[in-house]
Amino acid sequence: MYDVKEWRHAFKLDPDKLITDEDLEQVCESGTDAIIIGGSDHINEEDILNLMARVRRYLIPCVLEVSTLEAVVPGFDLYFIPTVFNSRDPKWIVELHKNAIKEYGELMDWDETLVEGYCILNEDCKAAKLTDADTSIELEDVKAYARMAENMFHLPIFYLEYSGTYGDPQVVKEVKSVLNSTKLFYGGGITTPEKAAEMAKFADTVIVGNVIYDDLKAALKTVGAVKS
Amino acid sequence: MYDVKEWRHAFKLDPDKLITDEDLEQVCESGTDAIIIGGSDHINEEDILNLMARVRRYLIPCVLEVSTLEAVVPGFDLYFIPTVFNSRDPKWIVELHKNAIKEYGELMDWDETLVEGYCILNEDCKAAKLTDADTSIELEDVKAYARMAENMFHLPIFYLEYSGTYGDPQVVKEVKSVLNSTKLFYGGGITTPEKAAEMAKFADTVIVGNVIYDDLKAALKTVGAVKS
Repeated sequence: MYDVKEWRHAFKLDPDKLITDEDLEQVCESGTDAIIIGGSDHINEEDILNLMARVRRYLIPCVLEVSTLEAVVPGFDLYFIPTVFNSRDPKWIVELHKNAIKEYGELMDWDETLVEGYCILNEDCKAAKLTDADTSIELEDVKAYARMAENMFHLPIFYLEYSGTYGDPQVVKEVKSVLNSTKLFYGGGITTPEKAAEMAKFADTVIVGNVIYDDLKAALKTVGAVKS
Repeated sequence: MYDVKEWRHAFKLDPDKLITDEDLEQVCESGTDAIIIGGSDHINEEDILNLMARVRRYLIPCVLEVSTLEAVVPGFDLYFIPTVFNSRDPKWIVELHKNAIKEYGELMDWDETLVEGYCILNEDCKAAKLTDADTSIELEDVKAYARMAENMFHLPIFYLEYSGTYGDPQVVKEVKSVLNSTKLFYGGGITTPEKAAEMAKFADTVIVGNVIYDDLKAALKTVGAVKS
């Protein structure tokens, strides 16, 4: 079993985006701790299967971040299940999850399933719109959600999601200060090694996504920046 | 620290209802495992404080089931925090909790705070109306919520709430069958020792409430019925 608590850096690949074999090799052999496959747009089983199969050539933990019940594919090392605490719709907090458990509950291996308490903070991102997230909350609300993840729900991961924009390192620092056993994931706007290094001062794990497709060289450099 | 996992029977006292000292003594010395103070109507700090002080004359664990942020009183042995999985409003799933943690997070002793995953199944009860609970769900939904309580959120308690009406023992049996470490609380319509004994076959803990005020003798007999 992989120990997510040790991960400092992960790349998130979007099954809806194209990546060449050469680029994928560099991503998988970059020294990152894991590949997370996940996205919000046009997610389907076929694309996920193809991408998983291509990542499986490399000795790197491969995680599916489940975003729709229609595209849950067996064969991953781990499954991340987001629950969006600041959604205004129970669908994204507990309902889709209940439906998934209703359908697959008996088959699920809970040892390989990790729940992520999400707090989405960029109002313009697709995930915020999809989940009707209340992104106008204060720092103290975010810290309260973090404490909730750890103390009420005993979640392994609290995920600060700024998808598409670079967040406020002070927010990340403050949120980290209220967490003990629950690990803090940061994602969003990591376009340079400098930004990766800055967030890595506070977040336990830095997630790097879009820049893989926009500027692979910069993306690859974030690994060293986070780990040094 | 009291071990809730060992409790077979608890009385739930409503701070909005009157009980004489003599009746309260019989309730507290009945052999029940705990007194839970909680309710949905006109809950205020003063009534809770008074009732707690009166229960404190007896050597019995005394729990506050928190239903409003306006009436959280220190001095209880344990605090139960409900999260209503089948509510249609995030307020009752995570939002009130976040607000409570925002206000009291640094002061909270999480070792004495237990989260209850609630599923409210009597559409006519006040709790269902208050929380806009979807009581029309199928057995398989209820079982999925139970698995969610245990496996996603690692909650100590899953609470089947039929408040005011007697539930279906087969539902309780089926729900119990999917739980391992999370304990199953049953509450609602326990008006006779026979009903208490029937639910005690499947639920880990049987909660007896209204009958205390309607027929104390019958209420007291539920203790032996559950424990024998």
